[in-house]
Amino acid sequence: METTVKKSALVVSAHSADFVWRAGGAIALHASRGYDVHVVCLSFGERGESAKLWRKGNMTEALVKQHRQKEAEAAAEILGASIEFFDLGDYPLRADKETLFRLADVFRKIQPHFVLTHSIQDPYNYDHPLAANLTQEARIIAQAEGYRPGEPIIGAPPVYCFEPHQPEQCNWKPDVLLDITSVWDKKYAAIQCMAGQEHLWEYYTRVAQQRGVQAKRNVGITSPNVISHGEGYQSLFPRVTEDLS
Amino acid sequence: METTVKKSALVVSAHSADFVWRAGGAIALHASRGYDVHVVCLSFGERGESAKLWRKGNMTEALVKQHRQKEAEAAAEILGASIEFFDLGDYPLRADKETLFRLADVFRKIQPHFVLTHSIQDPYNYDHPLAANLTQEARIIAQAEGYRPGEPIIGAPPVYCFEPHQPEQCNWKPDVLLDITSVWDKKYAAIQCMAGQEHLWEYYTRVAQQRGVQAKRNVGITSPNVISHGEGYQSLFPRVTEDLS
Amino acid sequence: METTVKKSALVVSAHSADFVWRAGGAIALHASRGYDVHVVCLSFGERGESAKLWRKGNMTEALVKQHRQKEAEAAAEILGASIEFFDLGDYPLRADKETLFRLADVFRKIQPHFVLTHSIQDPYNYDHPLAANLTQEARIIAQAEGYRPGEPIIGAPPVYCFEPHQPEQCNWKPDVLLDITSVWDKKYAAIQCMAGQEHLWEYYTRVAQQRGVQAKRNVGITSPNVISHGEGYQSLFPRVTEDLS
Amino acid sequence: METTVKKSALVVSAHSADFVWRAGGAIALHASRGYDVHVVCLSFGERGESAKLWRKGNMTEALVKQHRQKEAEAAAEILGASIEFFDLGDYPLRADKETLFRLADVFRKIQPHFVLTHSIQDPYNYDHPLAANLTQEARIIAQAEGYRPGEPIIGAPPVYCFEPHQPEQCNWKPDVLLDITSVWDKKYAAIQCMAGQEHLWEYYTRVAQQRGVQAKRNVGITSPNVISHGEGYQSLFPRVTEDLS
Amino acid sequence: METTVKKSALVVSAHSADFVWRAGGAIALHASRGYDVHVVCLSFGERGESAKLWRKGNMTEALVKQHRQKEAEAAAEILGASIEFFDLGDYPLRADKETLFRLADVFRKIQPHFVLTHSIQDPYNYDHPLAANLTQEARIIAQAEGYRPGEPIIGAPPVYCFEPHQPEQCNWKPDVLLDITSVWDKKYAAIQCMAGQEHLWEYYTRVAQQRGVQAKRNVGITSPNVISHGEGYQSLFPRVTEDLS
Amino acid sequence: METTVKKSALVVSAHSADFVWRAGGAIALHASRGYDVHVVCLSFGERGESAKLWRKGNMTEALVKQHRQKEAEAAAEILGASIEFFDLGDYPLRADKETLFRLADVFRKIQPHFVLTHSIQDPYNYDHPLAANLTQEARIIAQAEGYRPGEPIIGAPPVYCFEPHQPEQCNWKPDVLLDITSVWDKKYAAIQCMAGQEHLWEYYTRVAQQRGVQAKRNVGITSPNVISHGEGYQSLFPRVTEDLS
Repeated sequence: METTVKKSALVVSAHSADFVWRAGGAIALHASRGYDVHVVCLSFGERGESAKLWRKGNMTEALVKQHRQKEAEAAAEILGASIEFFDLGDYPLRADKETLFRLADVFRKIQPHFVLTHSIQDPYNYDHPLAANLTQEARIIAQAEGYRPGEPIIGAPPVYCFEPHQPEQCNWKPDVLLDITSVWDKKYAAIQCMAGQEHLWEYYTRVAQQRGVQAKRNVGITSPNVISHGEGYQSLFPRVTEDLS
Repeated sequence: METTVKKSALVVSAHSADFVWRAGGAIALHASRGYDVHVVCLSFGERGESAKLWRKGNMTEALVKQHRQKEAEAAAEILGASIEFFDLGDYPLRADKETLFRLADVFRKIQPHFVLTHSIQDPYNYDHPLAANLTQEARIIAQAEGYRPGEPIIGAPPVYCFEPHQPEQCNWKPDVLLDITSVWDKKYAAIQCMAGQEHLWEYYTRVAQQRGVQAKRNVGITSPNVISHGEGYQSLFPRVTEDLS
Repeated sequence: METTVKKSALVVSAHSADFVWRAGGAIALHASRGYDVHVVCLSFGERGESAKLWRKGNMTEALVKQHRQKEAEAAAEILGASIEFFDLGDYPLRADKETLFRLADVFRKIQPHFVLTHSIQDPYNYDHPLAANLTQEARIIAQAEGYRPGEPIIGAPPVYCFEPHQPEQCNWKPDVLLDITSVWDKKYAAIQCMAGQEHLWEYYTRVAQQRGVQAKRNVGITSPNVISHGEGYQSLFPRVTEDLS
Repeated sequence: METTVKKSALVVSAHSADFVWRAGGAIALHASRGYDVHVVCLSFGERGESAKLWRKGNMTEALVKQHRQKEAEAAAEILGASIEFFDLGDYPLRADKETLFRLADVFRKIQPHFVLTHSIQDPYNYDHPLAANLTQEARIIAQAEGYRPGEPIIGAPPVYCFEPHQPEQCNWKPDVLLDITSVWDKKYAAIQCMAGQEHLWEYYTRVAQQRGVQAKRNVGITSPNVISHGEGYQSLFPRVTEDLS
Repeated sequence: METTVKKSALVVSAHSADFVWRAGGAIALHASRGYDVHVVCLSFGERGESAKLWRKGNMTEALVKQHRQKEAEAAAEILGASIEFFDLGDYPLRADKETLFRLADVFRKIQPHFVLTHSIQDPYNYDHPLAANLTQEARIIAQAEGYRPGEPIIGAPPVYCFEPHQPEQCNWKPDVLLDITSVWDKKYAAIQCMAGQEHLWEYYTRVAQQRGVQAKRNVGITSPNVISHGEGYQSLFPRVTEDLS
Repeated sequence: METTVKKSALVVSAHSADFVWRAGGAIALHASRGYDVHVVCLSFGERGESAKLWRKGNMTEALVKQHRQKEAEAAAEILGASIEFFDLGDYPLRADKETLFRLADVFRKIQPHFVLTHSIQDPYNYDHPLAANLTQEARIIAQAEGYRPGEPIIGAPPVYCFEPHQPEQCNWKPDVLLDITSVWDKKYAAIQCMAGQEHLWEYYTRVAQQRGVQAKRNVGITSPNVISHGEGYQSLFPRVTEDLS
């Protein structure tokens, strides 16, 4: 029976904090509903997204990574997700065939019901589109009967791109607004783990409030739902459904 | 309690057969699930979509309209929908403010949970985008507190564009694939009411089969769902949800 | 000498509050720098954007308009702009040839150095694109030697689309981020004139903060500029310059 | 036999000089190959494209039109086309149902093998897109069996948009480069009929040279064709063929 | 004299069956008209497109490749094309500089009059865009005088993208509809060689029928051509012509 | 004080002549205004853009490069820029991580106030988009505190794409028209250094004239500016400003 299978989700994050700002609500929400949510951080963002740490002085790349890993683990725990780190390096992030297979194997193991990752374009950050494309291609490999033949393949889980820092500049257009009102406190607690990027806490709080207002607007003011916080997502595939309302 | 309110849907069709080819599955499916589905035909397609009738000879516009109305009523009955005709004329279809208000009033009366209409672009058929824009604007009017103040306004029902005859040429890209397998027999029966356009019966059967294969592909081959027929839709607004799987 | 000619700007607003939310910073900023800024409100937004007033009860369209006019006049005064009202009606806004010429005549009189108006697309609000297109066409008429021959024609002032309520859904992409830090207090004071739309005050405050962060990001963290609030604009024409930095 | 039917083409020009600058090569080329080419000028461009005439002083709209008509007739004669004038007025050009039917009737009479008109977008000139849309819709009406039933309908002639003044700003992208080398002298002679717009003679000579270089580039430098002048066109419909080379 | 040179075409297929589903009609049609058509299969699709073979059990990659090669050779023979296999591996397909030069050398040898390959985007299959880009870049290398100086370079053959599995999702828009009615029997015979993908036989039969109906629609119902089957293509470069009909 | 810091600009050119045709005006103009302008040529264009040299016979790649380097140095001197050559090879141009860091180091050293490079798309030339992406990514690396920690990072200089050979085919749309009238003589002198590509001299002269006319058109005919030559640019980031006129 389908109901006995635990549902799962996979989140692929270029740097170790992206999953918090961009998908923390989705993670906490689905975790709270019984999903196993697994996060893969491709890098720690040690070069490009740790400015505050570097400015402290007396830093090495190893130390920065350590800091960032602890923050990410703390955030994942608050959100209710498991987490692993590929440690591929950032600025630039690069992925060879072995990395592709490594991620495909995660897909095979997790058998996700949906997938979250970065937008396909981002002129401010080349690591993000690379992560998105790696995720997409790994999903395709994991669907192939001829890759590690005999292993169970995966289905066709929907893939959603989470919100980039400057959405319009990335030609990112949300077609899904996720109501994260019920888990906002968890997301904000996870955000506060990111000690090195305090300047972003209020920025992403406001993002959540704006998407909340928009979600409210798109269900209509006659709806009884109270929505204060949201997250936007862009689907990469059509969804299959039997109900249009 | 929400469950006691009957759900409803509104379909706006430029010509009297469009709703059958393009949305017959959605109509039958939701009718079968208890929705009140209402169809508005803006014209009978008497000039532009009744070639076979005109070629019979001894025809007048009034006779053509009569024929087309009967066909559409028969199809609506099979699909389980109510239907009305605005008789605005076609080729070209034109709509003034009064028509806009008339359609806004239908919105107010139906209070639809979702709306189906044409694509926003169609270089082969200027009546179709006009219908789509009229529908969109009527929905906006019906949401306004200041239009017929005191009347109950409508919420923000999602609007879906159904598939045009040559989808790529209309820059129409489906983001929803509706599984209409369970009602295909009804849709095909409704299609057969369109005696004047027999050349399209098999065309739209194949459209349904192709969208069925694509729906199957997008749920994944590991899914137990058997999908043989589908309909594609393009959303005009983001959907609001609490579940991404 | 060019410096003796006073610079001017024209703002065309579909409803009587749009210019405040969307362009209040630009208006106050340029007014403070000596520009004559003139606002044309095509309608009062009496039907579509006055929900709170209608809910009070005992309202008529005339009363709502009166309210809205007073609010808009108060806001314009704070921002330092002159204002006039075309009273064309809203939901739907419609413009005939006479309106087009009336607006062209405003262009001729104002001789604006730049123009602000709505985005070209907005699926949530059909009055907005209509206002944008009316503005564009009036500008073209005002440039024509054969329109009221003998009158001084206008040049080719740049046209900027201000930010719609849900920017991505309107395919609006800002290519200009205006630093409105120095006039934010005026903009917020003007916003507070809009008593009927209190729910939008904080929404548009956050919009300004987000655009401020993005402006800061796009000048670079090494820049000495302190930017706390911004407004985004999309240009409709290429700008002509002699300096790329 | 197909070869006994004379081929024909229809060109719809918003103002009385557009067909010369933008399609003079295509007209002369096809006329020289035996096509009947017919030009419809929707207006004389009396307001918006006759600046030089107005500046002479002592002008009336009637006089300007007279001038412009003579120029256009002279150009058409050189190019080998017949011409007619709808005299709808310009800046703004507007078309009602009667105009639509009038143009549909021209389609029916000419039975064109291809159609040339303006681009679908032009932020510098709202008359141009209006002409393009009018042409497209008239073509659709002329295809309908129910429009003037009994009259021979038209087929599905390809429609090409000719080059606007600032192509990139109009999102116009040529997919056809017409080699007009053999008729360039005729096009330039026709261009010289436009005494009121002398500043454009060299501009459009350079356009032809640039499109010539591009055509040469797109046939390849190994091709024996000598191409010095070209015209770019954007198709609105797919072409049907049996040969891809 | 140009007429004595035999015409040729090059088809680049990511996996060993793609050229059959997607371009079998074009191949058979041009072969029947005297073209030398050459197919390059970059991989056998052994991992990603051989599910049925893998499910048989007792399979190795070598065996799967053997099977696929035989099927592809049989199909090519029916269509009248020569074929070669680069055996680069699939899921993922990757190409280094040597592969690029190898394909450029094929271009030099074949001197194609046109080129067929995959679409530039395909979110379901990353091998397809890679093949398209490899083909495009190899064509550019083969045009360069400085690549293997002294060898005859190639001209500028048009490149057409054939239809992907889910066209709208790939942003693929056909601007050419090829009438393959006369060779449909050959294409279907070739399709039947693909024993491992029987589920696609009817899918691609319906694709051909739909494109046939659309081709008929785009030549017009007044045309005497009988078109029952078609293939859609998207051009990547403008075509150069002297006739627009 | 800001005024004491000398302004600088960085130009990244895929082949050794691109910076002349495409950005020679911008370089000369800013050099004449006191900027330090530095050009990086990633390759000499020895394979793909030196056809005339190769046709002379008795050529080797080393000789071609030598020729091209001299031409480029002469052109740079005329324009007033410093120049360096990465000698990465062309057709195909490829860049590994070391090249990326090498270019990032140039960014760090130059600290440019603006950056010029190729368009993001070019179906005729795959080296051009590669150069554009390399430039964008190097800029991002150079902004990262964790790349060579302790070194001064760069700000967020605007990046402009210069005009490709066939602009519409590259989906390149200029949003900036640079008035290069005052330095046209220098640009044309630099162009004449490119002895191997004489066929392009007049082509790019006409490009400059057309962009000049368009610049004139976009400032308006009432402006006193005399503009005879221009260069078009497409911005990749929004600009931040305090003045919209």
